[in-house]
Amino acid sequence: MEFNFNELPPKDRYRLLCNFVGPRPIALVTTMCRDGRSNAAPMSFFNVFSQDPPIVILGIQAKQDGTPKDTTVNIRETGEFVVNMVDMGIADQMITCGLNFPRGVDEVEKAGLTLDPSLQVRPGRILEAPCSMECRLHQSIEFPRRSIILGQVVQMHVRNDCIDDAGRYVRSDVYHPIARLHADNYIVADQQFVLKATETV
Amino acid sequence: MEFNFNELPPKDRYRLLCNFVGPRPIALVTTMCRDGRSNAAPMSFFNVFSQDPPIVILGIQAKQDGTPKDTTVNIRETGEFVVNMVDMGIADQMITCGLNFPRGVDEVEKAGLTLDPSLQVRPGRILEAPCSMECRLHQSIEFPRRSIILGQVVQMHVRNDCIDDAGRYVRSDVYHPIARLHADNYIVADQQFVLKATETV
Repeated sequence: MEFNFNELPPKDRYRLLCNFVGPRPIALVTTMCRDGRSNAAPMSFFNVFSQDPPIVILGIQAKQDGTPKDTTVNIRETGEFVVNMVDMGIADQMITCGLNFPRGVDEVEKAGLTLDPSLQVRPGRILEAPCSMECRLHQSIEFPRRSIILGQVVQMHVRNDCIDDAGRYVRSDVYHPIARLHADNYIVADQQFVLKATETV
Repeated sequence: MEFNFNELPPKDRYRLLCNFVGPRPIALVTTMCRDGRSNAAPMSFFNVFSQDPPIVILGIQAKQDGTPKDTTVNIRETGEFVVNMVDMGIADQMITCGLNFPRGVDEVEKAGLTLDPSLQVRPGRILEAPCSMECRLHQSIEFPRRSIILGQVVQMHVRNDCIDDAGRYVRSDVYHPIARLHADNYIVADQQFVLKATETV
């Protein structure tokens, strides 16, 4: 079946892209507004794109009325954010953080999560998350209803049970992040398998 | 465990980012060089970031010697590429496309895949792929050893068995894309579950 994206309305493009581009990793993004209140929001338009410099990217849509979301406002104002990875232990809490609470409501507290101070940035990290990355705004690409935000990772925190004692490799029998597919469909990475080339060049 | 990214060498940052940011969706990217030869390469520094305009992003590393990979060269020269999604039916073929064949070798043919003409761009799409997105280069962000490429999706093709007859929703019982985690570890999205908020705002 063919879809000419030049002729499709944005909401149909959105549905098709979310339906077919996946599974998408999930960033539970914590930010702080100028007056010090915290915010947390999950997003799956997210991934890592570079190690030198270490860059992660977020795609954050505007609100229905066209104004930027709290996360976008906070990143613009402070230049800082934290990406917290999500496993099954905090999956329901991540969903709660995605609800449209009024500005000023602390989603982290509402969800029953704990904010712990970060080492290099002001927004806190989520203590229960298996991995958190402290980021500084590197660059943003602005469209009328969408901000694409490149963050440079300055600090990574990994929960001790998720990494080997030498601090080199993930323990893939323990670290099982979840990912998003279409609508409210998710998967969890608890059944990993190895794919390798059978021929050599 | 804490990792200060300002003090870690790039290869350690790469290992940690690939170990913990995931599962990452996979784009099998087809391009065409100026003389008409085709190229295919898999990448997991990839996701969708916007629907208006419809933007997907790729993060492509340079070769060991610092020169750009064929995919990067071809996108720069032609401004066009196709993102083909990957399911278990073409998983081994995707791995084969990732081998370091000499420039000029047709990975698509080598992997036993079929290139079908695209509708709006010159690089072909992979016939066996469950979904293909024809893209035009929107913008690139260049670092010394990494290109971050924003592509605007102009056409999406979905294999008929993966979408309902009305062409609106993915058939999640059929469409099971694979995603990458650390090293050669992958998962397939064949065991999806629903996560929804239990409270309302």
